[in-house]
Amino acid sequence: MQKVNKNDPSLKVIFLGGVGEIGKNMTALEFGDEIIVVDCGVAFPSGDMPGVDLVIPDTAYLIANRQKVKGIVLTHGHEDHIGSLPYVLKDLNVPVYGTRLTLALLEPKLREHKMTDMVRLNSVKPGSVIHLGANFKVEFVNVSHSVAGSCALAITTPVGVVFHTGDFKVDYTPIDGNVIDLNRIAEIGEKGVLLLLAESTNVERRGSTMSEATVGASLNAIFSDNADRRIFIATFASNVHRLQQIIDLAVKYKRKVAFSGRSMLNVLDVASKIGELKYSKDAIVDIEKIKNLDDKELVIVTTGSQGEPMSALTRMASGEFNKVKLGYNDTVIISASPIPGNEKMIYNVINNLYRLGAKVIYESLAEVHVSGHACQNELSLIHALIKPKYFIPVHGEYRHLKRHAELAMKMGMHSSNIILCDIGNCVLVNKKQFKLGDNVTAGYLLVDGLGVGDVGSVVIRDRIHLSEDGLVCVAVSIDKASGSVTDIDVASKGFMFLKENDDIISDAKDVVMRALEKCDLKAAVADLNPLKNAVRKELKNFLFKKTRRDPIILTMILEA
Amino acid sequence: MQKVNKNDPSLKVIFLGGVGEIGKNMTALEFGDEIIVVDCGVAFPSGDMPGVDLVIPDTAYLIANRQKVKGIVLTHGHEDHIGSLPYVLKDLNVPVYGTRLTLALLEPKLREHKMTDMVRLNSVKPGSVIHLGANFKVEFVNVSHSVAGSCALAITTPVGVVFHTGDFKVDYTPIDGNVIDLNRIAEIGEKGVLLLLAESTNVERRGSTMSEATVGASLNAIFSDNADRRIFIATFASNVHRLQQIIDLAVKYKRKVAFSGRSMLNVLDVASKIGELKYSKDAIVDIEKIKNLDDKELVIVTTGSQGEPMSALTRMASGEFNKVKLGYNDTVIISASPIPGNEKMIYNVINNLYRLGAKVIYESLAEVHVSGHACQNELSLIHALIKPKYFIPVHGEYRHLKRHAELAMKMGMHSSNIILCDIGNCVLVNKKQFKLGDNVTAGYLLVDGLGVGDVGSVVIRDRIHLSEDGLVCVAVSIDKASGSVTDIDVASKGFMFLKENDDIISDAKDVVMRALEKCDLKAAVADLNPLKNAVRKELKNFLFKKTRRDPIILTMILEA
Repeated sequence: MQKVNKNDPSLKVIFLGGVGEIGKNMTALEFGDEIIVVDCGVAFPSGDMPGVDLVIPDTAYLIANRQKVKGIVLTHGHEDHIGSLPYVLKDLNVPVYGTRLTLALLEPKLREHKMTDMVRLNSVKPGSVIHLGANFKVEFVNVSHSVAGSCALAITTPVGVVFHTGDFKVDYTPIDGNVIDLNRIAEIGEKGVLLLLAESTNVERRGSTMSEATVGASLNAIFSDNADRRIFIATFASNVHRLQQIIDLAVKYKRKVAFSGRSMLNVLDVASKIGELKYSKDAIVDIEKIKNLDDKELVIVTTGSQGEPMSALTRMASGEFNKVKLGYNDTVIISASPIPGNEKMIYNVINNLYRLGAKVIYESLAEVHVSGHACQNELSLIHALIKPKYFIPVHGEYRHLKRHAELAMKMGMHSSNIILCDIGNCVLVNKKQFKLGDNVTAGYLLVDGLGVGDVGSVVIRDRIHLSEDGLVCVAVSIDKASGSVTDIDVASKGFMFLKENDDIISDAKDVVMRALEKCDLKAAVADLNPLKNAVRKELKNFLFKKTRRDPIILTMILEA
Repeated sequence: MQKVNKNDPSLKVIFLGGVGEIGKNMTALEFGDEIIVVDCGVAFPSGDMPGVDLVIPDTAYLIANRQKVKGIVLTHGHEDHIGSLPYVLKDLNVPVYGTRLTLALLEPKLREHKMTDMVRLNSVKPGSVIHLGANFKVEFVNVSHSVAGSCALAITTPVGVVFHTGDFKVDYTPIDGNVIDLNRIAEIGEKGVLLLLAESTNVERRGSTMSEATVGASLNAIFSDNADRRIFIATFASNVHRLQQIIDLAVKYKRKVAFSGRSMLNVLDVASKIGELKYSKDAIVDIEKIKNLDDKELVIVTTGSQGEPMSALTRMASGEFNKVKLGYNDTVIISASPIPGNEKMIYNVINNLYRLGAKVIYESLAEVHVSGHACQNELSLIHALIKPKYFIPVHGEYRHLKRHAELAMKMGMHSSNIILCDIGNCVLVNKKQFKLGDNVTAGYLLVDGLGVGDVGSVVIRDRIHLSEDGLVCVAVSIDKASGSVTDIDVASKGFMFLKENDDIISDAKDVVMRALEKCDLKAAVADLNPLKNAVRKELKNFLFKKTRRDPIILTMILEA
């Protein structure tokens, strides 16, 4: 092993995402004048970001160093790993590397943003190696996960090897037969790994995650028990192995499969084109043509396993989906777990399905879903095989990172060789040191409609305030010359139910008039702000006394 | 047994709550010209009711029949069973019956509403019987639950006995030694029960709920393992047996207990006054005086186990609680489960506690909480002992009611003897019939600040729309005589980040001006609505094209 001086250059590991509560993954590795980026995910807004469509990483640091960036390597094709690419590539058009399915899942997004022609996508086979710049060599190592084509990355750098697990589990009986490449992982570990970055999602769970094949067995039993009924299965579109199992079962039980939901049709299209999904055309039926089939001849695979308000399943459950009406002869399988925060939505869908008379089978009743993430035993296996010098837990809330650090320490790692990171942290690492450097600019940008970043914390704060107390708007017209008020109007939205001539409105107008009378209106025309503030203050006090509510007050002053 | 004709009068069982997704419990039993009411709970608003403080039952039916109502009987003192009483008793001041602790938990609420003097509270001992009107005899039967003083009700009516479980579990080793009265339940079942109403919360869980005593054993181990550290425990204030165990452990480990949070202090006060909580004054220390104590001499019991934004624990976790600062020598125990919908909030608190360096112990890591509700085996036990002729599952979402019906059917009950109800349903029952009658007026009223019912579906819809897209307000002043526009102002809240002279604002003003130019302003002064609509429509189109957002547009027209 080469000797490294204290002053030797360090590798920088920079977290632009991938740690903490916002589930978008993006990590940069920087050495000298070269940077490579692992993943480029999107997050979906939580309840405290109303109206926001997407949350993408702030890539100001990369843009400021754009000449250094050699490429973006993708571990797999889930939204939280690839979803921000259409936004990020607009400002930073570097080559992108991923497996065939990963890129196939990315393509429809690029098409939507009319970027297909400008982007440089490079397909990489699991097991192969790419060189990025002079300093980075990236080996794609096959792992199991809930989307096919998932890889861990063994990244050789001038200071040593960084092993990034991506998202993974250890599935000894995967549907496509490509078992996680434990032998290669062992070999990489044996040669020496400087730093392990490993995902932490399921670190609170004991034992091991069950194989995807167990879902097939459960579904088989359900198909057999529900021979005369129509079967619906809600699942994630990107889980092509789950889709494969469903199609195979449908063939076995002489049913045709209809797909519902845009993302479902997208995945069906791209995955079958590249051979990740194998079926005869004959096995599928267009959702528009299911009326010709008996209940017992049909399986309908649909999006909406998280109870998303606009999804096919949610609309079916509330009777608003014209193509399919549910009833007593239907069995609906929710082949997914609620993502934290979605519990209420999905349970509402289940309640509504029951109200329609359907039979509903979900995770607490049968093994119709397995996680795609490693539990404690699988994480321990990776730590044991990789034997890293240093460790940074990634991909989880802070509590998961903490628990993952504890797991590593129980396996003998010293706490000084583990760093828990937050977004924006930059870790300096080489054979002699492992420490936090200066933070870089990082965080998130909110996407709302066509705007990226024009909805920030003030707008969000206002939106939340509006949702809780509504708004009262006062408009006043003032005659400039005489300094007299010619008209006052007061209106509200989301405040409370008010009739046209409600007392509270006329009282509010009186309050505004009295506030105005105290001001020198002629003088005010030069600077309206003191006038606006006086009106706002009086009205605010009046409304709070009257209702114990605190609406946003918008004051507009016009010239008559 | 007396013979009942087909035309014999029926008992009406009316659901004013207690079934479905809104967790407020209220059931009325009506026979002839008499009504009794079981429980009067409140629900806390879900995410789709922004700004709402409380959800209370619509009691229009009871108010319309006020002369019939003989009293309200309470099964136990949880909010979802007693919380609406201050609102309901204002319109319907009937006698209230409950156990000592149930009434003690109610009293501070009545005090807050300045109703203590007007309300007639009647304390009932478990095991005793009260008569209400000529037709109802109510026996309070001791059960286990997560609040002491919980009872099931055996209600004898002219058509037979109705057994209402209230909320319960079967705890063979309860902290106060008062085991659920299975012998009496068996006796009641043996004599014949016409109708069982049984709670359904945990019907999806196999086996039996663990005893409250197991929490004590877990806490004991934690106290022992954390001898030198300060210990925090977050739990529900009303769980007096949990509080008792914590106080007893503190005494054993020579620590003093400090309580934090208003509801915690309330319960401590009322429960110790009536002897439900037993401790020497010496065991407690005022939270203001904990600075004099070493970490190892202290246990701090706090509210906030659901991550409620204003709670003591949440503020401690975000470093905003002045009385207590958390750090590396603190162990925080979350002795509660997340109520569905609260997961994100409580996990955020846990993440923040970890960030402060504290050790955090929560349900997925240790048995620091047990449920207060019966699992499948306990429910089966009650069905077996009661052997009812008819069954209505209550207290759960629709999926729980459905599963509870399936459990009863597996035990041999015929589906025609089970009815799944929604709010507003009225079941007609006597020895010869069991069927749904006409619905009654029922539902919920929203409480916001001082207002009850003035926030309805339109206001809520506006609030949600405001939170997603914000609001743009246009004010126009028009000279009546000339029909000319003297001024236009456009302002926004929660829409997007706009600078004072942003293009979009001046463009919007132009759009408004052009819309106005198309109108006959002189004529418009008589009826402003067509003018407002024209402006709104044009502006809406402009903003959507420009931003793909759809803010609420408020139009105000003033006279110049």
